[in-house]
Amino acid sequence: MTQPAESKGYFVRLLALFPLICLINFSSVEARTVYHKWEVKYEYKSPDCYKKLVITINGRSPGPTIFAQQGDTVFVELKNSLWTENVAVHWHGIRQLGTPWSDGAEGVTQCPILPGETFIYRFVVDRAGTYLYHGHYGMQRAAGLYGSIIVSLPEGVSEPFSYDYDQNIILNDWYHASTNEQAAGLSAIPFVFVGEPQSLLINGRGKYNCSLSTASGSAAGVCNTTNPECSPSSLTVVPGKTYRLRIGSLTSLSALAFEIEGHDMTVVEADGNYVEPFAIRNLYIYSGETYSVLVKADQDSSRNYWATINVVARNPATPTGLAIFNYYPNHPQKQPPTAPATGPIWNDTASRLAQSLAFRARQGFINKPPVTADRVIVLLNTQNKIDGHFKWSLNNLSLILPQTPYLVALKENLTGAFAQDPPPDGYDVENYDIHSLAENVNATSSNRIYRLRFNSTVDVILQNANSMTVKNSETHPWHLHGHDFWVLGYGTGKYNISCDWRKYNLVNPVMKSTAPLHPYGWTALRFRADNPGVWAFHCHVESHFYMGMGVVFEEGIEKVGELPSSIRGCGESEGRRNTNEVTRRPPSLHNLSCPGILKLRACNLSDDAVPEDLWSLSSLQKASNNSKLPKNFNKLGDSQKLDLLTTSPAIVHLSELKDTAPQVQERIMKGFGGFFPRGNEIPDNFIQNEVLHYILMHLNLMVMICWVFTCAVLAHPKFITVWKILVSVG
Amino acid sequence: MTQPAESKGYFVRLLALFPLICLINFSSVEARTVYHKWEVKYEYKSPDCYKKLVITINGRSPGPTIFAQQGDTVFVELKNSLWTENVAVHWHGIRQLGTPWSDGAEGVTQCPILPGETFIYRFVVDRAGTYLYHGHYGMQRAAGLYGSIIVSLPEGVSEPFSYDYDQNIILNDWYHASTNEQAAGLSAIPFVFVGEPQSLLINGRGKYNCSLSTASGSAAGVCNTTNPECSPSSLTVVPGKTYRLRIGSLTSLSALAFEIEGHDMTVVEADGNYVEPFAIRNLYIYSGETYSVLVKADQDSSRNYWATINVVARNPATPTGLAIFNYYPNHPQKQPPTAPATGPIWNDTASRLAQSLAFRARQGFINKPPVTADRVIVLLNTQNKIDGHFKWSLNNLSLILPQTPYLVALKENLTGAFAQDPPPDGYDVENYDIHSLAENVNATSSNRIYRLRFNSTVDVILQNANSMTVKNSETHPWHLHGHDFWVLGYGTGKYNISCDWRKYNLVNPVMKSTAPLHPYGWTALRFRADNPGVWAFHCHVESHFYMGMGVVFEEGIEKVGELPSSIRGCGESEGRRNTNEVTRRPPSLHNLSCPGILKLRACNLSDDAVPEDLWSLSSLQKASNNSKLPKNFNKLGDSQKLDLLTTSPAIVHLSELKDTAPQVQERIMKGFGGFFPRGNEIPDNFIQNEVLHYILMHLNLMVMICWVFTCAVLAHPKFITVWKILVSVG
Repeated sequence: MTQPAESKGYFVRLLALFPLICLINFSSVEARTVYHKWEVKYEYKSPDCYKKLVITINGRSPGPTIFAQQGDTVFVELKNSLWTENVAVHWHGIRQLGTPWSDGAEGVTQCPILPGETFIYRFVVDRAGTYLYHGHYGMQRAAGLYGSIIVSLPEGVSEPFSYDYDQNIILNDWYHASTNEQAAGLSAIPFVFVGEPQSLLINGRGKYNCSLSTASGSAAGVCNTTNPECSPSSLTVVPGKTYRLRIGSLTSLSALAFEIEGHDMTVVEADGNYVEPFAIRNLYIYSGETYSVLVKADQDSSRNYWATINVVARNPATPTGLAIFNYYPNHPQKQPPTAPATGPIWNDTASRLAQSLAFRARQGFINKPPVTADRVIVLLNTQNKIDGHFKWSLNNLSLILPQTPYLVALKENLTGAFAQDPPPDGYDVENYDIHSLAENVNATSSNRIYRLRFNSTVDVILQNANSMTVKNSETHPWHLHGHDFWVLGYGTGKYNISCDWRKYNLVNPVMKSTAPLHPYGWTALRFRADNPGVWAFHCHVESHFYMGMGVVFEEGIEKVGELPSSIRGCGESEGRRNTNEVTRRPPSLHNLSCPGILKLRACNLSDDAVPEDLWSLSSLQKASNNSKLPKNFNKLGDSQKLDLLTTSPAIVHLSELKDTAPQVQERIMKGFGGFFPRGNEIPDNFIQNEVLHYILMHLNLMVMICWVFTCAVLAHPKFITVWKILVSVG
Repeated sequence: MTQPAESKGYFVRLLALFPLICLINFSSVEARTVYHKWEVKYEYKSPDCYKKLVITINGRSPGPTIFAQQGDTVFVELKNSLWTENVAVHWHGIRQLGTPWSDGAEGVTQCPILPGETFIYRFVVDRAGTYLYHGHYGMQRAAGLYGSIIVSLPEGVSEPFSYDYDQNIILNDWYHASTNEQAAGLSAIPFVFVGEPQSLLINGRGKYNCSLSTASGSAAGVCNTTNPECSPSSLTVVPGKTYRLRIGSLTSLSALAFEIEGHDMTVVEADGNYVEPFAIRNLYIYSGETYSVLVKADQDSSRNYWATINVVARNPATPTGLAIFNYYPNHPQKQPPTAPATGPIWNDTASRLAQSLAFRARQGFINKPPVTADRVIVLLNTQNKIDGHFKWSLNNLSLILPQTPYLVALKENLTGAFAQDPPPDGYDVENYDIHSLAENVNATSSNRIYRLRFNSTVDVILQNANSMTVKNSETHPWHLHGHDFWVLGYGTGKYNISCDWRKYNLVNPVMKSTAPLHPYGWTALRFRADNPGVWAFHCHVESHFYMGMGVVFEEGIEKVGELPSSIRGCGESEGRRNTNEVTRRPPSLHNLSCPGILKLRACNLSDDAVPEDLWSLSSLQKASNNSKLPKNFNKLGDSQKLDLLTTSPAIVHLSELKDTAPQVQERIMKGFGGFFPRGNEIPDNFIQNEVLHYILMHLNLMVMICWVFTCAVLAHPKFITVWKILVSVG
């Protein structure tokens, strides 16, 4: 009787150890590090054939894609090599749980990074999905400082939909005026708007009509339609295969309609959240949004098709943005025989509203919202003149970020850093006519912030109104840092606080981090103030945010850990960025002797990949056994390979790179977007620290294994018996 | 017998008090404060008719002229309103005795000023003369951030030459490419030089041939020759009068020849030092130099004349820069009947060398140099390629400024902030052929500095050589911060250390702070390392300094006082700019109740003065009893007044402004370039502090007066007798 009971007890005891085993597994094998070393600088580029200064990352715009796996820690060691400009980069859609100081919003979570300085962003990508990054200082995003973050599921976990390959598509609009010139106009009296963009870009490529440009020579303004930098991006597909297109938009101004000629798309993900699949022909995408759509290459494979973006929600003055949806084995640049789509009617607000309303959280992945809110903040979105300058305001306050980042000011009680009185939770609903042009003469500039009770549920009702132009109300994509929100509803006209809440979807609302506010409409959002930190919430139109269209939320500031000194050094924040301070660096190539522990993710090359990159990726593919590159890769011609390289990430063990020449290693690393420190760039104690870290990590693992083993041994009835005997003998 | 002796003793005793009386006088009346409040930002301007973004100060480029009197303390409260760029401003020619942290050289004496931040420069202008100021960060000087400093003699002291009026002339060359675009080319591989400037500017005005420009609309690139912003500057003179033209050049690249058609000029001042007068037709002026020349309006007064600048020392590709030397009462814009001078032959190096050699210190004002030097540093000026980038080097080292300003690093022993090994004092004189193109493959980038023994005498021999272009040697104007140097000699070919010192002028060498190094030549300079601080010494060509053409000297760092925290906050420098920190602000308009104590200097309006300024200056003139405005001022028409306003400073008692309306006061202040804080910009404790300061100052004065009076009384023989009687009675 005892023995069976003891045997059962043994399994219970072993079972109790199981989470521990999982933990060991997770911490030693899965909790990986993705390391990027970036240099940010100005370089001449011709993304739409027109040559101008662009802010690049490692020579590219868009910058390198960050590929990571859920749970990974991402390090981005960013060196500012601009000449006189500071910089800051925001990781758009990443919630920064526990690392609010890595959010990259200048003035909110950090001081800007000075020229010549290096700043290390470190954050965990806690959830699979499609995300973005971009400059979050002045209007630097519009200068080309942007890119994608792709977070895959943990190994062994699969998506709730099937597809063969991934393709990454990042959309933008593009201006020829420098960001300084744009800002000068926005700040001028009289106001000069940035206007409609010159081009639309797909994966950093567009085509400007060079006959409109007259400059010549080697400097800015040269326009050359045969420049390979502006040949359209090709999205190569193998007939019959299903592709997951990960689409993100970081336009400065434009709302876009994306479509692929002759192909239906099924939306499956929005801002990192699964959505109930639904088919569309046109995807409306607003700045700051990301979507995954599934597309099957099921059309006539003897030709190519246009992938197009067209401006909606504003009277378009920008030509259609084009890419080629290329059926293998057609030449990737082969022109489709048809005319590109011109997109839906730009001012069909109803159609856009309908698509916004069509989103539902995917069955089986519904994160139910709290049924009621603890606080409701209604934000009236208006355009105003303040001291002669055009501004955007919320409840008559136009945001001006303080010199001292809120995060530092709040954490250290620097009450002089910003105005301490709270902004209003609402506006004069009774008397305000959202349909007429109002001067809003009481609007003022302000740096006041909303302080939210930690863990409370907050509703934000965005209320649109007429701008300062007669019969005009604009579209504003609102983006919340540090959270996803439930999109409870959209409506037209003035939100009615006594009954419109009845229209909320509390059953299966989609969660997002960016949602549009449609002309003359309202958008109702709900979120839990459960992420200690300070978070910007703003219109994602670059010029609108520049003109003050944002608010700031504080929640649980007392729960924020010690701030890194690297975010300080401006305004009233004492102490300063010490570039040697940064916590713990990731293992380097010197750790090649520990295969299996560290995995490196090969990622797709950006479109401006050079033949050397191609060659190195091709060597890489040979070196890698578990590469996820398409199987037909080696059968393709070089130019086709170049396009095919925009496929799913290949997982490569570092050990597999060990035998390649250092130059090849470096080239491969560069191909990945990130690359590892070279000898002369590594601090003296770097290798040492890393070896120590490695030993400690393994020591920990070994101790754990020993412990589990000992426990297992000690827990087994036979050994207990032996033990009892030994004890009794003793 | 006793009485006369006592009487003599009385005067001796009184005489002994005299310095004390002077001190009181000086401190209460003469040691004045010149206060400027500046906002630095980008604005669209059309200085040469071509519209582009320009860095302005209070809306102007060139910025407001700083007028001060010898011994004055100048406060410049500079707010950086650029969007994403930092800034720093150097006070060119001001020695910063005791205030090395106010020199404004980013990376050398301070961290840059962040956007939104305010930095207060405070320094004493210790010597009368003509000086300059300009951006000293990146290439911001070339973006329009520059202006003049005019320091007059103390009252009662007169110049050793006579003239009727002052005129201020600031010269520049002008590029249409932004400084980012220029820097991008200089940093690119292959190298793209900034090229020859598009225009030459006199007092911020030039004329570009708009037919070469094709842009249209309202943005950058619009070119309109009828834009009043680019009508030529007029230098209005009254026939028969003698003018002191204070001429400064802040060109990015160009050496210039300045002449006034049909008029001889007599040079009397160079870089703030009197020179033995000599007559010239063409003044060669290099970037960073200032001169005063006397010109008599003694020509046919029925017409106007051209004042011209032409490029020399480089094959010119820039049209002549023009201003109108306007004989009153001709219309200031009346075209002279002749063609403008095209200047001397550009490559007549001998003629330029001859003018350089012609300068002598003025008799009666000779500051004799030490006869020998304690140290001789020979700097070979070469062009090199380093890591594929074009650079300029000194003895094979190309300067890269460190993240931490040298001043902070040295004062706080942050030895990691820059390389501690000294740069070489010479080069391989024997084997280096300065006449042939050399690759100088050993050149490297460096942040090493020269550490000079305090109070030692240092000779610097600048040695020119061939650039990386065949048969080309360039002209480099070398500027030393924190000092004047004696210009001991210039020569051609390779400096011979064993005999060329015999050619030195040790009798009456001129002192300067900028001196040219001519093609294939040498320049010998001597200075006393007697100013505790860290001082840049560099080629004043903007692109050359950007490309590393400079060195840094440290001297007496241990004698430097406590550094203001406002210069810190970058690199390894802990602590940070506290905008409230700044020592003591100058009195404000609220101190109007203390007339006589504080004087305000009205200064000439810059050429873009608007009618309101004119009007206010005209009211000012009426209000002022001791105005130095020309006596015929009120007889002139408005447009003539506008030009005449570029005359000598008018001294105005603040009390005289007391009764004018606040708006007028403010407008007048703005007209002066500087203006006083308005109510809402004054810190809470400001007035209080100032009142306290005023009381203390006067209390001090009254105590002094009482003391002197008591002493005088007590010291008088009669009272001594009374005293003796009283004592004996007692």
